[in-house]
Amino acid sequence: MVMMKAAVFVEPGRIEIQDKPIPDVGDNDALMRVTTTTICGTDVHILKGEYPVESGLTVGHEPVGVIEKLGKNVRGYREGQRVIAGAICPSYTSYACQDGCPSQDGGHHAHGYKPMGGWRFGNTIDGAQAEYILVPDAQANLAPVPDGLSDEEVLMCPDIMSTGFAGAESAGINIGDIVVVFAQGPIGLCATAGARLKGAGLIIAVDGIDERLAMSRQMGADITLDFRKVDVVAEIFNITGGRGVDAAIEALGTQQTFESALRVLKPGGTLSSLGVYSTDLSIPLGAFAAGLGDHRIVTSLCPGGKERMRRLMSVIESSRLDLKPMVTHRYALDDIVAAYDLFSHQRDGVLKIALSMGR
Amino acid sequence: MVMMKAAVFVEPGRIEIQDKPIPDVGDNDALMRVTTTTICGTDVHILKGEYPVESGLTVGHEPVGVIEKLGKNVRGYREGQRVIAGAICPSYTSYACQDGCPSQDGGHHAHGYKPMGGWRFGNTIDGAQAEYILVPDAQANLAPVPDGLSDEEVLMCPDIMSTGFAGAESAGINIGDIVVVFAQGPIGLCATAGARLKGAGLIIAVDGIDERLAMSRQMGADITLDFRKVDVVAEIFNITGGRGVDAAIEALGTQQTFESALRVLKPGGTLSSLGVYSTDLSIPLGAFAAGLGDHRIVTSLCPGGKERMRRLMSVIESSRLDLKPMVTHRYALDDIVAAYDLFSHQRDGVLKIALSMGR
Amino acid sequence: MVMMKAAVFVEPGRIEIQDKPIPDVGDNDALMRVTTTTICGTDVHILKGEYPVESGLTVGHEPVGVIEKLGKNVRGYREGQRVIAGAICPSYTSYACQDGCPSQDGGHHAHGYKPMGGWRFGNTIDGAQAEYILVPDAQANLAPVPDGLSDEEVLMCPDIMSTGFAGAESAGINIGDIVVVFAQGPIGLCATAGARLKGAGLIIAVDGIDERLAMSRQMGADITLDFRKVDVVAEIFNITGGRGVDAAIEALGTQQTFESALRVLKPGGTLSSLGVYSTDLSIPLGAFAAGLGDHRIVTSLCPGGKERMRRLMSVIESSRLDLKPMVTHRYALDDIVAAYDLFSHQRDGVLKIALSMGR
Amino acid sequence: MVMMKAAVFVEPGRIEIQDKPIPDVGDNDALMRVTTTTICGTDVHILKGEYPVESGLTVGHEPVGVIEKLGKNVRGYREGQRVIAGAICPSYTSYACQDGCPSQDGGHHAHGYKPMGGWRFGNTIDGAQAEYILVPDAQANLAPVPDGLSDEEVLMCPDIMSTGFAGAESAGINIGDIVVVFAQGPIGLCATAGARLKGAGLIIAVDGIDERLAMSRQMGADITLDFRKVDVVAEIFNITGGRGVDAAIEALGTQQTFESALRVLKPGGTLSSLGVYSTDLSIPLGAFAAGLGDHRIVTSLCPGGKERMRRLMSVIESSRLDLKPMVTHRYALDDIVAAYDLFSHQRDGVLKIALSMGR
Repeated sequence: MVMMKAAVFVEPGRIEIQDKPIPDVGDNDALMRVTTTTICGTDVHILKGEYPVESGLTVGHEPVGVIEKLGKNVRGYREGQRVIAGAICPSYTSYACQDGCPSQDGGHHAHGYKPMGGWRFGNTIDGAQAEYILVPDAQANLAPVPDGLSDEEVLMCPDIMSTGFAGAESAGINIGDIVVVFAQGPIGLCATAGARLKGAGLIIAVDGIDERLAMSRQMGADITLDFRKVDVVAEIFNITGGRGVDAAIEALGTQQTFESALRVLKPGGTLSSLGVYSTDLSIPLGAFAAGLGDHRIVTSLCPGGKERMRRLMSVIESSRLDLKPMVTHRYALDDIVAAYDLFSHQRDGVLKIALSMGR
Repeated sequence: MVMMKAAVFVEPGRIEIQDKPIPDVGDNDALMRVTTTTICGTDVHILKGEYPVESGLTVGHEPVGVIEKLGKNVRGYREGQRVIAGAICPSYTSYACQDGCPSQDGGHHAHGYKPMGGWRFGNTIDGAQAEYILVPDAQANLAPVPDGLSDEEVLMCPDIMSTGFAGAESAGINIGDIVVVFAQGPIGLCATAGARLKGAGLIIAVDGIDERLAMSRQMGADITLDFRKVDVVAEIFNITGGRGVDAAIEALGTQQTFESALRVLKPGGTLSSLGVYSTDLSIPLGAFAAGLGDHRIVTSLCPGGKERMRRLMSVIESSRLDLKPMVTHRYALDDIVAAYDLFSHQRDGVLKIALSMGR
Repeated sequence: MVMMKAAVFVEPGRIEIQDKPIPDVGDNDALMRVTTTTICGTDVHILKGEYPVESGLTVGHEPVGVIEKLGKNVRGYREGQRVIAGAICPSYTSYACQDGCPSQDGGHHAHGYKPMGGWRFGNTIDGAQAEYILVPDAQANLAPVPDGLSDEEVLMCPDIMSTGFAGAESAGINIGDIVVVFAQGPIGLCATAGARLKGAGLIIAVDGIDERLAMSRQMGADITLDFRKVDVVAEIFNITGGRGVDAAIEALGTQQTFESALRVLKPGGTLSSLGVYSTDLSIPLGAFAAGLGDHRIVTSLCPGGKERMRRLMSVIESSRLDLKPMVTHRYALDDIVAAYDLFSHQRDGVLKIALSMGR
Repeated sequence: MVMMKAAVFVEPGRIEIQDKPIPDVGDNDALMRVTTTTICGTDVHILKGEYPVESGLTVGHEPVGVIEKLGKNVRGYREGQRVIAGAICPSYTSYACQDGCPSQDGGHHAHGYKPMGGWRFGNTIDGAQAEYILVPDAQANLAPVPDGLSDEEVLMCPDIMSTGFAGAESAGINIGDIVVVFAQGPIGLCATAGARLKGAGLIIAVDGIDERLAMSRQMGADITLDFRKVDVVAEIFNITGGRGVDAAIEALGTQQTFESALRVLKPGGTLSSLGVYSTDLSIPLGAFAAGLGDHRIVTSLCPGGKERMRRLMSVIESSRLDLKPMVTHRYALDDIVAAYDLFSHQRDGVLKIALSMGR
């Protein structure tokens, strides 16, 4: 049995490198040799035990690599080809998938809906922080990397870019919209970039960290607001002459950002929520116009699948935006404990870490 | 000065018939002689002082009548013509109106959005529970009644039918959807009828009053659930084999119905909210899948305008549904105090009261 | 090698019953024992050589039957279970499928779009007019028949009902729309039923055969027009008071119906085309408002997949409509040559033929 | 009677400066002193007699200027304020306007739809190539120019920018789409810019004039194709690896561009047509997949109204794009005959002419 190194969740507070067998390749699978991956905020929730996964699971869900071996039913690819797979790997055969909800893929369940059912890597099956990863339903999920794009250039596609853009897409942004994005971590930054790409006429980015506000201007924000310094809600009404915004994107997952996002909406506006919440949420009666404001609140889980990955990479290939500046740190897989430590404490202005597999 | 009778809000707890001058007709207005109108749940909130309006205002927002006099700029109508006007009378000239939010019409304000700004009758200007009503922006709001339709047949169009249908429309119902409607008062019944009209494959109606559940079957419900007898959330998962519903329509305005509506949604489902809430709302973390369930929550204020009224009346004209059974009681304007008393206490199985102007 | 009977295309003008081996079941396939199927207009095109397929191919694409054997990767079903599969059987793994075009499934092609690529039965692989049919990508395509529904009740789901409904869905019908459906053959009748189900306020059905016009009223038409007796375009403008229709559905595939559908549209209206054309089409300049009428022309290929089939069967299960009256004739597979003869000559008021497998 | 200068259509081949009375201001009107306007391709059709208007009509439909006088019902503006009005000035009170088709405004007609009914300036009422223009339904149509934007910066908003962007909007462009724009005249250039603004991942611009291809790259095209040098259809399939484009925008109005746009579509793709055609169009059977390709053909008339103008100006204000380079020539109103001569012969690389009112 050939072995590989993998970052494994052992118990709350402990993710460590272990040796695991390189998995066998089923008929509909592909084995990918990972060349680069990264750590996500969700991985930190797993590390802390806030999001429960099984002990022994390999974590991580953002693989960039090379096809090592293809299952016998997987066609149109070749071994050695550079590919990525989305953080969400839907089967595309379930009722949910065919009903427009591939991220909520229910697998073979009778009725086929399971919240977050499409998220398998580092959640219900072994993930990407390893030398090899088995991609299920590979025909639907392997996306070739265009020539000329580096690993780091496509590293955000599997999750951060797909999620952030989904926030802008679900917001239904029209040309000339005024959009505010609450929080400018990696997902918020991608939401800002997505709002720009969808034609927003004015983009307001909110955060409390100078480097992130600076980065948000690089990603397309017209105005940045530091919540440590101004009353954000009041300031947004001031900027918009009392009108409010067409869409507010929430990219943190707290009551405060959710509530502020609702308060600044115009009647008829949309709150597009991306954050992962950890408490019940309260909807203030006034901000909700007692239910009569023609408001919409929409939530989006990261879209996956090879077509989504292809589109995101095409946007990078055509130089619509450059997400490399978001890679602030680089580590080898062997040093992943240190990488988690830096990332979970948000030290040193870290946005995203590129984890390479070389030794 | 020629006088008319009108039901006037005097102070909390007191709506009474008073004599008021028949209003002058501005260039863009029309004066309508009201032949039939009705009382809405919102009027009861006004009566109780829960929704504040100015003392001296004529209440009511559902006028059916005859054109008495047309302003000089209003064309294509004739005096004596039978017409209705929507509860919501947008100007159609504001930014909000042109931006797809006519109900949130901001009038001439610089930026043009005002929550519920399109609702003027019995809110910011004199309303329909009177012998005459002045219709503003009449060119945009007068809708001729098709020959052969009685006053009572079109009486629900200005508000109840338009609102209930909007609940089904905003839910984005597709052919074969499973839809649940929470509460089967007049608006919930119209939401049930609207869901049926939009192609829902299975409609579940929830209430606690036998007559309303019976009426909901008449309006198109396939299954009725009495919340006094069953655990509604559990029962819906049972009926749907664990799948949940595609859309849940909330038609009451309480935490309990809102929360139940969210709990029974499939991942990817839509909560379409019609109720007027009187408290902050709580979103339970689990029902919301921590923000990752691809859920949508949408609210709808009653759509108005003559095109909307024309469409609703055409549906009645072509016998798609019959809302007359919802008129359970009839009163003359002079007896409006008794009518409010019956309606506000929900006595005698009342659904809607037709108020006639004759004596 | 176990043999079965199958209706095979031999050469133009000749479809005949032959013995063929019952196919082997691949890992992702299912073998279905066909109990009932039918003949489609497309099959007649194949018979006549107007639509080319390979000699030796089993024709037919509307299977109703029982699972005989499941491939080893196909889960959540059991052998002996009653199922249908759509005429269109997408792989759901291609770029096209994930891009919202499963009917145009490109399989494993590099870029993944192929016109009608999802139509495989009786086109690129053996079809349903046989004792057994092999269903590819079975996990995505097998749809269990609800208890209590007969074969004939679900016989239209795989193609006719899915296609006709798609005509109404693609038309974007809103509550109160005026819709005209040109031609009331099986697909046109289902489009009429679909328009009714989507909330159209007035449905005008056009044909030249009395039985079909009578059936269209049964399916939901409010008004029928016989093109042999009236100038249809003029009459529609007469009915609509000069306004034109919101949507016109074309369900035949000729220049005349296409052109009439365009002529009766209101500015801003939608022509939803279902017909299979056999010549170039001409768009008259005036009817097209020189390109300035905000018109839409949309075409729809039959949607397939198990979720679509599930939804269509649920509509029948809840008695929204009854398509059994469209089954006008019944034949055994052995008599298929006679069945084709009747159907292709449209004799005896034939709408759809149920082909049973028993002897 | 105070007089002004106006460019008047006299007869085919003859537009000339005449003295006309400055119009009276009705209650719902505004009188605008024009400071800058331009000549449109449509004006050339009028000059040549290809599009008939009444003799004596003032031509032009793209006014930039200053409010001279407000009708008594027009509120929220002040005299002296800088404003624009759209080429299309809908009443916003008709059935068509409330039905989502303001450009097809039917005015006070009983049923309210009239092809291009919203286009009034220089078509059914006096237009913008004059010292003063009367804006009807001014409350709905006057849009204040943001401080800091020059006349030339907003000169494209009333027509060219609104139309070109509508081509991209109606195409339903998603992030990462491949879009081709046929013809890079002023409208095609704005469609290119609009496609970029909507998130297209690859934009291919087609024309036969070098300066226009160069300008298209400035407006956002990634690839330019010169139809004099390459087989455009073949080249697009080459570029897209055989896939075809997600959307093709037609911006000329000829059979050849329309047909090429259809030929390069992927199955499931959209042809968004902006051109004004002068002949019947032919749809080739193969390119149309015999009606089974899930194709959409949509046409768009220039959207108008003050909200549209506000949004377009906001996009310019936030530096999303700069359309000033499209102003290639400048003339005074007095020299309009020479301006028409240059523009109608497309001499000297002309794209758009700014006409100023000063002498």
